[in-house]
Amino acid sequence: MNKTPDIINIRLSDNRTHCIAVDQTALPNKLSFLKLQTPQEFFDAIRTLQLRGAPCLGISAGYALYCAAQLQDEADDALWRARFRSTADFIRSARPTAVNLEWACQRMVSVLERNPDTPPRKLIDLLGQEADAIRAEDEASCRAISEFGLTLLTEGKGVLTVCNAGPLATSRYGTALGPLLLAKERGLHVPVFACETRPLLQGARLTAWELQNAGIDVTLICDNMAASVMANGWVSAVFAGCDRVAANGDAANKVGTSMLAILAKHFGIPFYILGPSSTFDAQCPSGKDICIEQRDPEEIRSKWYKEPMAPAGIKCYNPAFDVTDHSLISGFVTDRGIVHPPFTFEGSC
Amino acid sequence: MNKTPDIINIRLSDNRTHCIAVDQTALPNKLSFLKLQTPQEFFDAIRTLQLRGAPCLGISAGYALYCAAQLQDEADDALWRARFRSTADFIRSARPTAVNLEWACQRMVSVLERNPDTPPRKLIDLLGQEADAIRAEDEASCRAISEFGLTLLTEGKGVLTVCNAGPLATSRYGTALGPLLLAKERGLHVPVFACETRPLLQGARLTAWELQNAGIDVTLICDNMAASVMANGWVSAVFAGCDRVAANGDAANKVGTSMLAILAKHFGIPFYILGPSSTFDAQCPSGKDICIEQRDPEEIRSKWYKEPMAPAGIKCYNPAFDVTDHSLISGFVTDRGIVHPPFTFEGSC
Repeated sequence: MNKTPDIINIRLSDNRTHCIAVDQTALPNKLSFLKLQTPQEFFDAIRTLQLRGAPCLGISAGYALYCAAQLQDEADDALWRARFRSTADFIRSARPTAVNLEWACQRMVSVLERNPDTPPRKLIDLLGQEADAIRAEDEASCRAISEFGLTLLTEGKGVLTVCNAGPLATSRYGTALGPLLLAKERGLHVPVFACETRPLLQGARLTAWELQNAGIDVTLICDNMAASVMANGWVSAVFAGCDRVAANGDAANKVGTSMLAILAKHFGIPFYILGPSSTFDAQCPSGKDICIEQRDPEEIRSKWYKEPMAPAGIKCYNPAFDVTDHSLISGFVTDRGIVHPPFTFEGSC
Repeated sequence: MNKTPDIINIRLSDNRTHCIAVDQTALPNKLSFLKLQTPQEFFDAIRTLQLRGAPCLGISAGYALYCAAQLQDEADDALWRARFRSTADFIRSARPTAVNLEWACQRMVSVLERNPDTPPRKLIDLLGQEADAIRAEDEASCRAISEFGLTLLTEGKGVLTVCNAGPLATSRYGTALGPLLLAKERGLHVPVFACETRPLLQGARLTAWELQNAGIDVTLICDNMAASVMANGWVSAVFAGCDRVAANGDAANKVGTSMLAILAKHFGIPFYILGPSSTFDAQCPSGKDICIEQRDPEEIRSKWYKEPMAPAGIKCYNPAFDVTDHSLISGFVTDRGIVHPPFTFEGSC
């Protein structure tokens, strides 16, 4: 296994016409790269979770639309703009729950809106700058989240995390994993317990891999062992990422997150949501208004296995996310500080 | 898939020298049978979970020692008895947490103690009767548990269960699944949500299979989706089996059970432990005194998969069981009725 703590999940090629992205579904066994250029290629990579993680989806959407813009026929300005908007709708539809995808698509479309008389050739340059800005802002944001989150950590006290909210899911450092990686850089010993995160095992495949690469003391558990870890007194905080935070503080994140929040409350352990302000959706009043993506039953029944592990035709319930009630969240670690609802961001929120 | 609702997990051969047992690790893809005769064969089948489920382990231990008794050299009475006791210790050591294994071994040894002057030839017959009695009593016990549990069910209201506490884990009907199978026989519609139960997937492989065979409306979920199912209002009770219940009512069962109990309390859903009185251990004051079996990390990292799903060498925490605090348990559904601690059984407790 290569030591690759600073691996970049998605980046533009040198000639800026396409992207090179880590195929996150091939980890931890293989570090392989995808070439993405057409909207369909980006859509498929997002839909199949080769690219995943809320901030990474925002960055990917920016690049997807920049690459798509370069492929469009520039003969007719109006047609070009209509086509671009339709591509943005297509990319946005790849996954419904993460606000970042929608937010980044809207941000790219707004470049056209702000420049109503600019021809396609020039718009393409502006779209490239916007996509670069989305990435740069995420890096700054992750850095800020990591610094704020670091203030919650104590030498020798463990942290439990779920799914993957590290560098692979963002630009660098990550959200939930950011403070843990920063702690390691600063010589603080913080043992981490990573929930494997069924059915897609992002915790086992990605978080365990990222933290092991960084030299962090990480222990992998099945999701149903979290209560045992807490009962044993091994963790003093839970850190989770988020895919969309409603105005009242209800937070959508990987399914199982709300379970950890309820367990943490039971055991008197603080539970934190970590995410950039772009994940906060002021237009969404509460968790009830968040659409939860339902995924293929075969992810539970047969995916990854040598042979199916449940009877053929068995009914499955496979929500990708759940909503954690705001009353269970001790604080939101954002790029603007550690905050509580009602939120007062000026940005997307 | 054959419809086999009345499948027998383990039974003596017609000549009563060995056992025929369902290999539970091959389900749901293959219904295959093991021939078990020597203590080592039984030990291995128990250790590798080809045979599993607390009551089934008690029944298996009875048969294992009866078969072993027939294989021993009968020349010297004292040696024969010493050898039998040593075999009982060996079988008992196959898995540490389930009280039924220990209880059944002790019960078989007590046949020798009650008959100090009986020669091996005659003891073998008595041991055979004792092993048959363990099975017969479990069947009666499961039937009683099912009847008592049925009083907790309501037409159309769902039940959440974990691991496998059905016919495969017992003699017939099961403990946690018994009332659900009986409800089906009596025409009551009770939808069931089965937690897949990582890492060994007994819920997906065994419970889903058993309930599907019985024609019950069963939905499979990953363990981390239980909070979503409860939040959706889909279940009005949680039914779990048990491997050992302490005198104060703390209950050891498959890891993840305590998580369900905490979630159920949060959502105001009653949580029941179902088990025969043989599972109640009066010698064990509280959950703190229950030894929790730790299993191989490869069960989390690589078992069942086409290729490992976590990085090589990753540290894992893999407890087979957890302890649910008595304060979280709404009632214990036993063969003696629905009870609460302090327990007043006359039997093993």
